[in-house]
Amino acid sequence: MSFKSGRHFLQIPGPTNVPDRVLHAIGHPTIDHRGPDFHKLSEEVLLGSRRIFKTSGPVIIFPTSGTGAWEAGLINSLSPGDKVLMFETGHFATLWCTMARKFGIEVDFVPTNWRHGADPQIVEEKLKADTEKTIKSVNIVHNETSTGVTSRIAEIRQAIDNAGHPALLMVDTISSLGSVDYRHEEWGVDVTVGCSQKGLMLPPGLGFNAVSEKALEASKHNGFNRHFWDWNDMLKANANYWYPSTPATNLLFGLREAIQMLEEEGLDNVFVRHARFAEATRRAVRTWGLEILCEEPKEYSPVLTTVMMPGDKGADAFRKVVLNAFDMSLGSGLGKVADKVFRIGHLGDLNDLTLLGTLAGVEMGLELAGVAHEKGGVQAAMSYLSDKAK
Amino acid sequence: MSFKSGRHFLQIPGPTNVPDRVLHAIGHPTIDHRGPDFHKLSEEVLLGSRRIFKTSGPVIIFPTSGTGAWEAGLINSLSPGDKVLMFETGHFATLWCTMARKFGIEVDFVPTNWRHGADPQIVEEKLKADTEKTIKSVNIVHNETSTGVTSRIAEIRQAIDNAGHPALLMVDTISSLGSVDYRHEEWGVDVTVGCSQKGLMLPPGLGFNAVSEKALEASKHNGFNRHFWDWNDMLKANANYWYPSTPATNLLFGLREAIQMLEEEGLDNVFVRHARFAEATRRAVRTWGLEILCEEPKEYSPVLTTVMMPGDKGADAFRKVVLNAFDMSLGSGLGKVADKVFRIGHLGDLNDLTLLGTLAGVEMGLELAGVAHEKGGVQAAMSYLSDKAK
Amino acid sequence: MSFKSGRHFLQIPGPTNVPDRVLHAIGHPTIDHRGPDFHKLSEEVLLGSRRIFKTSGPVIIFPTSGTGAWEAGLINSLSPGDKVLMFETGHFATLWCTMARKFGIEVDFVPTNWRHGADPQIVEEKLKADTEKTIKSVNIVHNETSTGVTSRIAEIRQAIDNAGHPALLMVDTISSLGSVDYRHEEWGVDVTVGCSQKGLMLPPGLGFNAVSEKALEASKHNGFNRHFWDWNDMLKANANYWYPSTPATNLLFGLREAIQMLEEEGLDNVFVRHARFAEATRRAVRTWGLEILCEEPKEYSPVLTTVMMPGDKGADAFRKVVLNAFDMSLGSGLGKVADKVFRIGHLGDLNDLTLLGTLAGVEMGLELAGVAHEKGGVQAAMSYLSDKAK
Amino acid sequence: MSFKSGRHFLQIPGPTNVPDRVLHAIGHPTIDHRGPDFHKLSEEVLLGSRRIFKTSGPVIIFPTSGTGAWEAGLINSLSPGDKVLMFETGHFATLWCTMARKFGIEVDFVPTNWRHGADPQIVEEKLKADTEKTIKSVNIVHNETSTGVTSRIAEIRQAIDNAGHPALLMVDTISSLGSVDYRHEEWGVDVTVGCSQKGLMLPPGLGFNAVSEKALEASKHNGFNRHFWDWNDMLKANANYWYPSTPATNLLFGLREAIQMLEEEGLDNVFVRHARFAEATRRAVRTWGLEILCEEPKEYSPVLTTVMMPGDKGADAFRKVVLNAFDMSLGSGLGKVADKVFRIGHLGDLNDLTLLGTLAGVEMGLELAGVAHEKGGVQAAMSYLSDKAK
Repeated sequence: MSFKSGRHFLQIPGPTNVPDRVLHAIGHPTIDHRGPDFHKLSEEVLLGSRRIFKTSGPVIIFPTSGTGAWEAGLINSLSPGDKVLMFETGHFATLWCTMARKFGIEVDFVPTNWRHGADPQIVEEKLKADTEKTIKSVNIVHNETSTGVTSRIAEIRQAIDNAGHPALLMVDTISSLGSVDYRHEEWGVDVTVGCSQKGLMLPPGLGFNAVSEKALEASKHNGFNRHFWDWNDMLKANANYWYPSTPATNLLFGLREAIQMLEEEGLDNVFVRHARFAEATRRAVRTWGLEILCEEPKEYSPVLTTVMMPGDKGADAFRKVVLNAFDMSLGSGLGKVADKVFRIGHLGDLNDLTLLGTLAGVEMGLELAGVAHEKGGVQAAMSYLSDKAK
Repeated sequence: MSFKSGRHFLQIPGPTNVPDRVLHAIGHPTIDHRGPDFHKLSEEVLLGSRRIFKTSGPVIIFPTSGTGAWEAGLINSLSPGDKVLMFETGHFATLWCTMARKFGIEVDFVPTNWRHGADPQIVEEKLKADTEKTIKSVNIVHNETSTGVTSRIAEIRQAIDNAGHPALLMVDTISSLGSVDYRHEEWGVDVTVGCSQKGLMLPPGLGFNAVSEKALEASKHNGFNRHFWDWNDMLKANANYWYPSTPATNLLFGLREAIQMLEEEGLDNVFVRHARFAEATRRAVRTWGLEILCEEPKEYSPVLTTVMMPGDKGADAFRKVVLNAFDMSLGSGLGKVADKVFRIGHLGDLNDLTLLGTLAGVEMGLELAGVAHEKGGVQAAMSYLSDKAK
Repeated sequence: MSFKSGRHFLQIPGPTNVPDRVLHAIGHPTIDHRGPDFHKLSEEVLLGSRRIFKTSGPVIIFPTSGTGAWEAGLINSLSPGDKVLMFETGHFATLWCTMARKFGIEVDFVPTNWRHGADPQIVEEKLKADTEKTIKSVNIVHNETSTGVTSRIAEIRQAIDNAGHPALLMVDTISSLGSVDYRHEEWGVDVTVGCSQKGLMLPPGLGFNAVSEKALEASKHNGFNRHFWDWNDMLKANANYWYPSTPATNLLFGLREAIQMLEEEGLDNVFVRHARFAEATRRAVRTWGLEILCEEPKEYSPVLTTVMMPGDKGADAFRKVVLNAFDMSLGSGLGKVADKVFRIGHLGDLNDLTLLGTLAGVEMGLELAGVAHEKGGVQAAMSYLSDKAK
Repeated sequence: MSFKSGRHFLQIPGPTNVPDRVLHAIGHPTIDHRGPDFHKLSEEVLLGSRRIFKTSGPVIIFPTSGTGAWEAGLINSLSPGDKVLMFETGHFATLWCTMARKFGIEVDFVPTNWRHGADPQIVEEKLKADTEKTIKSVNIVHNETSTGVTSRIAEIRQAIDNAGHPALLMVDTISSLGSVDYRHEEWGVDVTVGCSQKGLMLPPGLGFNAVSEKALEASKHNGFNRHFWDWNDMLKANANYWYPSTPATNLLFGLREAIQMLEEEGLDNVFVRHARFAEATRRAVRTWGLEILCEEPKEYSPVLTTVMMPGDKGADAFRKVVLNAFDMSLGSGLGKVADKVFRIGHLGDLNDLTLLGTLAGVEMGLELAGVAHEKGGVQAAMSYLSDKAK
C-alpha cells in the first residue's frame, strides 16, 4: 500500500478499529493449544466472556464469523421443520431468515419498513395465538447493523412471558455486544449470538454462542446432523478449558486483552460512551437537515447511525468521495436500502475527538459531493459533547 | 506469564512457530472488508493460494479450523447415505471418519496398524470390486499428524484410474500443505482440505478447500443443507474477490505474507528443507535406539517424526520433563497411541540450528527422565546436516 | 496504564504520532551491526537521509537527541572563543545559545520579541560590520518549536552572500525537517542539525548533522576535544557504511521506513499538506478571536501554531482540561512564554480529519475551561479544508 | 530481506536477541515526554535501573551508545591533565584509553597479553607508589567484550582500599550488566558505565552512568566544558523524573519491560543461568581441542567465550562459513586479535536449547570450514546441561 498520511478513519459499523493493545496481544507467538499456558488463557477467555454476555452459563467460542455463529445457534437448538418467529428488521435479519429456511426451518417473518425494531406486542400476539405451541423460537437481531435500529430485548422477553409461551428466545448481538447494555441471563435469553469484530474491538474470526440450560436441553434432542458446530462436544472439552478442534489461539490472546480493556473502562461506562457518541451524531445529522433511518427514538442504535441520502445523489457515490478525499470508510446501504443510505459507525475504540473528525469528514463530504445540507452539524455535536464533558 | 529466558521451542506438529513477518502482518489494523484495499488483499490471497495448492481452479478460504474445512469438504460434495472409502491411518483419519458418519455418510474404514499410510493397492481392489460404483469418494489424509506417516497420493490417484472408477478423491493436507510436495491439479484431486497453522506458518483460524470442477458439479446436486460452508455462495462472491460473510481479515494479511515468504524461499526448497530436517531427526532417533512409529520408509513424514516410547515410561511424563527442564513442547500421542509415543514437529519456520536445539532437548530429556537410550543422536544429526551443508 | 477508549491525540510539536509502519519496523529483532544485512540498512539510511536534507554531501546520524546533535554541530565546526551570531527567536534558540556559551563560544545573541524569525537584514548588517571576519558562524533555528515562527533560511543565505562574509551557516531543522521545504545544499548551509521525532515520524533517539565541505574542513582544525561527536571518525567509518560505535539499529530500521513513506507521499506533497494544516488551524484560531504568537505571516510555521492565552486564565490549566476531558496533549509554553501560550502541533503523520478532531478538542476545551472565545473555529477550518479537497 | 526460514542465531556478545516482550513494548506509540504517563514511566525506569546496578544513588540514562556513556563518565568526573590508571585488557579498554587521551587525560595504561583481567595487585602497588595522590581514577572494564575476560571488581576495590588511596573507581559494565553479578554500591564504585544492548536485552540506544556521591562531588569542580553529558543538569531534571532534553521514550518503554523481566526471573537466577551457559560452552570448546583466549579460570566471562583459531585458517573466513551455512552470527576478533579469534556470545535472552543450537552451529562450521577439531563438543555441553537440569 502506498502511504497516506494519518490513520484511516474506519467508521463502518464493524469491523471496528482494533486498539494497539489488542493488535499487540494478537501478535504474540502462537502457543501449544494443549499446553499449560494455553489452558490458562482458555480459562480466562471462557470465564471472561461470561461477564461480557452477563451470564453464569456457558459461552461457546468458535473460530468463525458471525454468520457461522448464527448457524451454530440455529442447528443446535432447532430441528428441521421447526417454526420460528422472526422480524424483518433489516438486511441481517433477512439473511438470518434465509439461512434458517435453507435448513428447512419454517420462518414466520414479520415485515417492517426497516425503520423499526421487532415489535414486542406482535411477539405477544403471535405467541398467544399459537395455542399449539408450534413456535419453537423467537429470533431477534438486537442491533440491526444495516439500519441502526435496536430492538428492545427486555420487552420481548416480557412479551414471551406474558404469552406464557415456551419458545426459545434467540438474540443476535453481533453489533451490540460490548457496546450496548445486554443481559443474557437476566433477560432470559436462550441463545445469544455474537462475534469479535464490533464492540469487542477484535479482528473478525471469532463467533460466540451464549446458551441457556433450556437451549442446551433442546440441543440434546434436536434433529440436525452436525459436528464442527456441536455445542455438546464443545462444552465437554470446554469443561476442562480445552477445545475439540484447534482454536484460533491468537485471536483468543486478543480476546483476553479486549475483555481486560472493557473491564478497565467499565462496561457501564462503555455503554454510556456509545450512547453519547450516538446522540452527538444524531444532532449533527439533524442539523444537516438529513433524515435518520430509524423512526423510533427509543430504538436509536448506540453503535451506528444510518442516514438517508437526500435527493437523487446515490449514497455510494457520496461514500466514495469521502473515502478519496478524507481517507474515511463509511458503511454502505445493504439490501433494499442499497445506495439509499449511508451508515456512520461510532462503536468500539474511539473517543470524542475521533467522532468529531468523523462527523467533520461527513459534513465536508456532503459539501464536496454537492449534497444539499445545512452546515453546523459538527458544531452541534461539539456543543453536546462539551456539555457532557463538564 | 512470568519470564522464562529465551524463546519457547514449539516443536509440536502444528501450530508451528509463526515468523515475525507474519505476526507483524497480522498486527496491521483491520480494514473495511468491502473497500478497495481489501479487494486487492483478497485477490492476492485467493490467487496466491492456488499456487500453494498447485491448482488453476478455485481455493476457498473459510474463517475456521481444519475441522471446519473437513466438514465443508464432506457436506458440499457428498450426500447423506453416500459411501466413502477411508483408511484408518491414525487419529485424525479416525476423527474424519467419525465426522462423516455423524452426517450419515457410510464409511468403509480400512484398518491399519497406524504405522502405514493408505494402501494404493487396496484402493484399486476396493474400487474394482465396486462394480455398482456406489463408492462416491476416496478420502485420504496426506500426512497423518498423529503418526508421522505420509500417504502416497499420486499412487492412490493411479489406483483410482486403474480401477476406472468415478469416485471423487478427497485429500486432507492439513499438516502437509506448504511443507511436503503436493499437486492438487496434477494428481487429479477433487477436494483438498487445508488449514493455516502448519506449513503455512500462520496462527490457527483459516481453513481451505481446493475444489475441482467435478467436485463443484457434485456440490450442485448434493443433499446436505448448508449455508456457512456452501461452496457456491462463496465462489459467487469470490469471483469478484469478495466474501459472503465477514472474512478473517487479519489472518488474510498473514496469509499474504506467508505466501510471499514461501515463494521467496521457493516451494521446492521448502520441501527439500523439510525432508532434510526429517532425515536428520530419524538419524538421531535411531542412534538413541528408539523406534520410529512409521514402518515404511517411503511413507516417512517430512514434517514430524513419531517416536515410540520404550519400556514402561509413559511418553507424557517424558514430555512434561522436557517442557519443564527445557521449555520445549513436543506432541503427545493421540487416540490409541496416547502416552505410548511422542511426536517431534520439524515443520514450518525453523532452521538447522533450531532443529539441533530440539534434538538436544529430546536427548537430554531422555537422560533426565531415565529413559534407556544411547547417546549420540544429536551428533548423528549434526553429521548429516553438515554433510548436506557442504 | 488503564484503558481510555480511542487513540490519544498527541498534538504537541513533537514527538509526533509514530505511524504503525514505523513502529513495526522498529519492532524488528536487532541484527548484528557488523553483518551484511546491517550494511545494506546503513547504506539505505545514509543515502536516503541525504535526499531528505537535500544534499549530495554526508549526513551523520548519531544515537542521541536533538540537543546532542546541536552539540555535535557546534564542537566540530567551531573553536573555544569563536564568535557566532544567533537570534533569540524563542526558547530553543536560547538553549542553543546557552549551550554554545558553556563551551566558551562567544554569542552575539540578537533579541526578538519571540514573535519573529531571524531577520536577514540584521544578518547582513552585522556581517558587513564585521570587517575583521571574527564571526565564525551564523546559527539559525529554522522553525522555532517554542513559538511557531519559521525563519527564512534562503534569505539569510542571501544576506551572508550580500555581505561577502565567510561565516558558516548553521541551521537547526529539528522541527522542520521532513515537514517544511528545506534545501541544505541549494541554500548553502554548512551544518544542518536534525532529529528523529518530528517530521521524520520516529521516536526520539536519533540526531543528525548534514555537513558541507567547508564545515568539514573547519572540523579538521578546530579546537574542541571530542570523541563520541567527532565527525571525522564517523565519516571514516560511514564511508563503508559502518559506524565507529554501536548505532541505534532499531531506530535505523524505523528511519528506513520513514524515508520510504515520505518518498511514497512525495516530499513536496508532504510540505503542501503541512501548509494546509497550518492555514486551517490559523483560520480556526482567528475565528475563536485568539491571537497567534507569530506576527509575521511569511514566517508562520507549517508545523505548529502557538496561540496566546487571553485574559488571566493560565494556558497550562487550559491544557490540563483538554488532556483530561479529551485525551489530547497540546504543547505548553516554554521559557518566557510559559503558561501564556499553548501550542497546537500539526506535523507528522496526520490527516485532515485528525486535524479537525484536534481543533474540535481545542474549541471544546476553551468552552470547558471558561476561556472567552467565539465559536465556529472548526467550521472555518472545515470550510477551508473542503475547498482544498475539491 | 529475502526469506530464510527460522530465526537468525544472533550469538555475538551484543547486541543480543531482543525478546518479543521488549520489542512489543518499544512498539508502543510515542507519548508526550512532558505528560503524566511519561512521568510515571520515567519514575519506574530511573528507580528500576538502581536495582539493576545495585545502588541507592542516581543512575543517569542518556539517549546514546556505550561509547557516549564512557565519554559522559570521563568528562563529568575528571579534568584535563588528570592521571588515570587503566589496564589494556583488550580492544574496548584500549578504545576507552584512546578516548581519555583525546580529552587530554593522562593514562597509565598497564599492558596485558589480552588474556587476563586487570590485576588487583598491580592496582595496589601503583596506588601505594602514588604518594602524591596524582592518580584521580582507576578505570576498569568489568567484562572485556573483545576477549571474554572478566576483571574482579571487588578485589580491585579492596586493592584501592589497601592502598588508602582516594582515586575514583570507574567501571565499564557494558557487557556484564544484567548478566554478571555486579554491585555498584557494595563495591564502592564511583562511576559505572552501562548500555542497553547486552544483558538488558534492548536494542542499542541507551547509555547509563551510575554515580556515587564522591563522583558527583568531583563533577562539580571539574574542568571539562559540557552540556549534553552534564550530570548535574540531568540530575536536577531527574529529581522530578523529567529530562533536560528529549529522552528516547520508546527505548525507555523497552527498559521498563526488560527490568520487569529480569526481576521476574530474579537477577541471581539470571547470573546462574549465564554462568551455566559459559561453562557448557567451555566444555564444548575444550572437547573440540580448541583454546580459550582467557587464561585465568576465575576470570572466565559468563557472557561470551573467545576461542583461538587453530592453524592458518582465518577466524573471519570461518565465521562467514557459519553465517552462510547456518544463519548464525558469531563475534569477530577485534584489534590485535582480529581474524585470530572468534567470539561466542551466550548472553541475554536465550535458553539451554538455543545455546546447544549455537554450539552445534560452531561444531558443524568447524567441519565445513575444514578446521581441525575433535567432535563431541555439543555432546559434552549436553552432558553438563542435563546434569544441571536434574
